[in-house]
Amino acid sequence: MTDLLAKKRDGGTLSTEEIDFMIQGYTRGTIPDYQMSAMCMAILLRGMDERETLDMTMSMMHSGETLDLSPIRGVKADKHSTGGVGDKTSLVLCPMVAATGLKIAKMSGRGLGHTGGTIDKLESFPGFTTAISEETFFRSVNEIGIAIMGQTADLVPADKKIYALRDVTGTVPSIPLIVSSIMSKKLASGADVIVLDVKCGDGAFMKTEADARRLAEGLTRVGRLAGRRCAAVITDMDQPLGYAVGNAVEVREAIAVLRGEEEGDLLELCLTLGGCMMVEAGFAAGIGEARERLLETIRDGSALGKLAAMVEAQGGDARAVYDPALLPDAAIKLEVPAAEAGYVSHIRAEQVGLVSMHLGGGRATKEDTIDLSVGVVLRKKVGDRVEIGESLGTIHASDPVKAEQAAELLRGCYELRPEPIERPAFIKAIIR
Amino acid sequence: MTDLLAKKRDGGTLSTEEIDFMIQGYTRGTIPDYQMSAMCMAILLRGMDERETLDMTMSMMHSGETLDLSPIRGVKADKHSTGGVGDKTSLVLCPMVAATGLKIAKMSGRGLGHTGGTIDKLESFPGFTTAISEETFFRSVNEIGIAIMGQTADLVPADKKIYALRDVTGTVPSIPLIVSSIMSKKLASGADVIVLDVKCGDGAFMKTEADARRLAEGLTRVGRLAGRRCAAVITDMDQPLGYAVGNAVEVREAIAVLRGEEEGDLLELCLTLGGCMMVEAGFAAGIGEARERLLETIRDGSALGKLAAMVEAQGGDARAVYDPALLPDAAIKLEVPAAEAGYVSHIRAEQVGLVSMHLGGGRATKEDTIDLSVGVVLRKKVGDRVEIGESLGTIHASDPVKAEQAAELLRGCYELRPEPIERPAFIKAIIR
Repeated sequence: MTDLLAKKRDGGTLSTEEIDFMIQGYTRGTIPDYQMSAMCMAILLRGMDERETLDMTMSMMHSGETLDLSPIRGVKADKHSTGGVGDKTSLVLCPMVAATGLKIAKMSGRGLGHTGGTIDKLESFPGFTTAISEETFFRSVNEIGIAIMGQTADLVPADKKIYALRDVTGTVPSIPLIVSSIMSKKLASGADVIVLDVKCGDGAFMKTEADARRLAEGLTRVGRLAGRRCAAVITDMDQPLGYAVGNAVEVREAIAVLRGEEEGDLLELCLTLGGCMMVEAGFAAGIGEARERLLETIRDGSALGKLAAMVEAQGGDARAVYDPALLPDAAIKLEVPAAEAGYVSHIRAEQVGLVSMHLGGGRATKEDTIDLSVGVVLRKKVGDRVEIGESLGTIHASDPVKAEQAAELLRGCYELRPEPIERPAFIKAIIR
Repeated sequence: MTDLLAKKRDGGTLSTEEIDFMIQGYTRGTIPDYQMSAMCMAILLRGMDERETLDMTMSMMHSGETLDLSPIRGVKADKHSTGGVGDKTSLVLCPMVAATGLKIAKMSGRGLGHTGGTIDKLESFPGFTTAISEETFFRSVNEIGIAIMGQTADLVPADKKIYALRDVTGTVPSIPLIVSSIMSKKLASGADVIVLDVKCGDGAFMKTEADARRLAEGLTRVGRLAGRRCAAVITDMDQPLGYAVGNAVEVREAIAVLRGEEEGDLLELCLTLGGCMMVEAGFAAGIGEARERLLETIRDGSALGKLAAMVEAQGGDARAVYDPALLPDAAIKLEVPAAEAGYVSHIRAEQVGLVSMHLGGGRATKEDTIDLSVGVVLRKKVGDRVEIGESLGTIHASDPVKAEQAAELLRGCYELRPEPIERPAFIKAIIR
């Protein structure tokens, strides 16, 4: 390992065998933390070429179990987002693409964050569970086209260990390390088609479009070299995605989009990601055709039907899909009037997430329980005109003191300017 | 520490307080190895400016005890070498400069290596000990001008810990890290004048003269900024220094130089380092004058007298200084005849060291015992003409099998060429 460190330190290229020695050795504990952290810093500062990044991804993928999706007929699709606040994309996208015939077999974790993960959000449907057997999981995907299962297999233990180390050694922002972390998990999850939503901007990990593009290209190239069909979408993140940030409030918004009652950035993102999935899967000749087919799943109710079928198959009350009043609802709803007039120029997404967290909608440690009913529903987004006293958003809360505090915090998330704002394009680029 | 890692990773400059937080935290164990190793890699690849290097040196120096040499009257001088095979410089240099009136108060360790350290070599004098009290140590320096004591104080624990980590994480070759490691120890040892012998070339740590110059300038600048008088000499290392590699054989060679019986690179180095010491101490106006005074200590026997006085004061048999036959002598002496004729173009110093090690003259672990009698005495150096069958050197051994093996190894250390060799200058530069 000392030789490998010297090689990378001096700008050299590690061989396939050397990378595998390092990843397996670190995962099994024969290579100590202090050598791996120095290696991560050397990789961050010296880089890795495409072959090294692919080798690292494959070695990490094979550090644990991998999911064999072969019992599922048809083309299996998966998506990954580099993270965002109010990101209920999966709740909208997965039913839509399942309605076109693509297969969605998702294994998901809960994770820590300002809101719950996709599993927590889905638990807003009374009775819904992801604790299903592999047999039920595969049968559901074959019959309905969509299922989501809590993570059971020991997928990519190398990533858990390396990511924890990177987090405390300043070695997170490295494209080869990010690519191998994301793609090892996506490859281990077994899908044929993988689309990636790479966020870009102030609140995102990649600050500039150039950096986001480099990451998107790294992700798709490694995926393709590993034999999967891949595309990436670079999206702007100068505000939360859609309007709702929380759990049940996000499910409500997802249902609204699937019912054709809401347009905007969330729908746009789902049409673009879904379009890429369909094109990569050979289900459509181009994005335009694919978008039309996806919009049709909204118009004919088939997307909403897929969501209902999945909820039903996994023990949930599917009536809530058609009657969102059955979803958890907060006791307190507090409007947040604007203190000044102007045009919204920026909404600090990270801070809106903290408002949700403050209300009890997120999880700081694994043991925390989430209040599914609380959250924030924005009423104004970037570019909108706001008058004094007009509501910027609604706080959904269980506790009146926290509600007042949250309202104050939410007001601080908004930046207003006197002159009209020209919003930058939300979809920056599609990388295929 | 994670913030500091991100700062250095991005090419930033660490403040005095940040560096002290890091060094003291790591020494006390509140900062883990994996963060410090990532920091060492970031420093290696991003560098440190002069202020940061000085701060790191001072913080390391103050991580443990420091030696207060104030009970010693006069100017105290010390030297450091970046390491070399057959480096018996201290055995010659220290008595010479002590004879000019400079004070040598040396604290030394044993260390690991191909030959013993200065303490081991001096133990070739029967009865000699460095286990003396601080009182005896100071009195000897005041009365004789020279004493050497085994390391008792807990000097620079930060360096022990950081060096052990650097050794296994590929982070040794960094100028700021080398400078802080060397100078923290030299500053903690308390001398007023510090001269440094920076080796350069194939067998040395610094391969090029440019790198050696950068290191030498880094060392002297930090020393001066810390209030000491400093100079450095850059010397070529395309062969071992002098002729002997071992313990008693090196003491014999040192005595020969002090008696005026041997000239060459070893004497040249001692005159240059000693000359720098005298000029920095204000004992001479220039190197030329200083060299003349140092040569006079050989001619008038005062340098040899200082060695004898030190050996006597520390319990050794000083008669051996005048009658080297009293020193340990190997039972077997085996000449190594050349297999081909030519001019010596290079002698692999590192490998000659391994010959000494193979014979039992070195120490791989702290528990190993050294055979003081064994070693190698070269007969040919770079530039010399060699005829077939002429001896390249003499193996001093206790074991006949090892002697034969050592002879074969020594032959492999020599590179011969048909055409005459023009030796590059041994003293490459003096940095003041």
